[in-house]
Amino acid sequence: MTVTHDMIRRLSRYKTVLKRLKSLGFVKVFSDNLGDALGISASLVRKDFASFGITGNKRGGYQVEALLVKLYEILGKNCSQQIIVVGCGKIGTALIDYNNFKQDGIKVVAGFDVASDIITTEGPAPIYDISELEEFIRREQIQIAILAVPESAAAHTADTLIHAGIKGILNFAPIQLKGPSNCIIRNINIRMEIEHLFCLIHFQEKDEAINE
Amino acid sequence: MTVTHDMIRRLSRYKTVLKRLKSLGFVKVFSDNLGDALGISASLVRKDFASFGITGNKRGGYQVEALLVKLYEILGKNCSQQIIVVGCGKIGTALIDYNNFKQDGIKVVAGFDVASDIITTEGPAPIYDISELEEFIRREQIQIAILAVPESAAAHTADTLIHAGIKGILNFAPIQLKGPSNCIIRNINIRMEIEHLFCLIHFQEKDEAINE
Repeated sequence: MTVTHDMIRRLSRYKTVLKRLKSLGFVKVFSDNLGDALGISASLVRKDFASFGITGNKRGGYQVEALLVKLYEILGKNCSQQIIVVGCGKIGTALIDYNNFKQDGIKVVAGFDVASDIITTEGPAPIYDISELEEFIRREQIQIAILAVPESAAAHTADTLIHAGIKGILNFAPIQLKGPSNCIIRNINIRMEIEHLFCLIHFQEKDEAINE
Repeated sequence: MTVTHDMIRRLSRYKTVLKRLKSLGFVKVFSDNLGDALGISASLVRKDFASFGITGNKRGGYQVEALLVKLYEILGKNCSQQIIVVGCGKIGTALIDYNNFKQDGIKVVAGFDVASDIITTEGPAPIYDISELEEFIRREQIQIAILAVPESAAAHTADTLIHAGIKGILNFAPIQLKGPSNCIIRNINIRMEIEHLFCLIHFQEKDEAINE
């Protein structure tokens, strides 16, 4: 079986939806429901599950609890998801204290920055000098970092992170970073997203058809 | 010709790269260079350009200036890209004063929030009460909004934005929103991205192959 990033992404989204359904008291769920929630077809949902040996009943129904157990097995239960934030400017600082992380057990355990005046042990997480970054990652066995440094510092900071053992980076610097095989980098380029929306709107206004 | 979102996204990225190259004094660029910058093949670059009637010379070279003119024609020049931020919590506030917008002429002209204690005319952009949102959008002919409200308020706030004439939404609320045909919604779910990275790492640690 070939597992793709997109497939893992969908499994991860199924897991999120199923956790919500469980908390709402749901016992069963249909592939149609999950398809609707993810904006994909029910048959793709069934195909994803079948790839991992999960089959529903005849009517396409699955037991929520059993599905979750299986997804935890595949994806990890993520009881303690400790991450760090590197670059504590506006976006970095906002993410250190990001409420939306909390309900899923993601915890920002430290921030790092080059600016000595923002080093602090107060606040939602301590902010350390960037010189302590590598040792901290090794000692605390951190796997994931959010990169929110300026564009000019992004590439070499990412190298430092990877060298220290980071396995996944969520990059907010407005530059496309590519990771080596032992580190997955997801680029979130907010400026490009806005540019892209303006381009799509301009294009649509010329009354030309765009497909999803 | 069928134009896809992905194609427009690539054109928008070519534009960004070309603007940089122009500022560096580049006169010519090859499809290989652009392919490298975007992490795609040179042949896809040539195919994209050919779709819009842009052809290079025999060796695959293009004039930077001529390409930019053509891309501005297709995508709009975006001289004045006025946007608003709805929901001025941590992420929203960080985006109101986001330095990376400035160099590309994107300007956040106002923020909106329900909390009366953060309404202000000071700072990088005024923050108004949410009750003024619809009139502001209509009066200023705003096309794009960043949505950074809590999850529970996301769906109905998006409806309000679309009703007032917003054509594109960059959604940071951790919920997947779907737009009607007259509004493009891009969902950026930071929590899900982190979850997804943990899932990918867990999966890789089990020593299973994942394809990009």
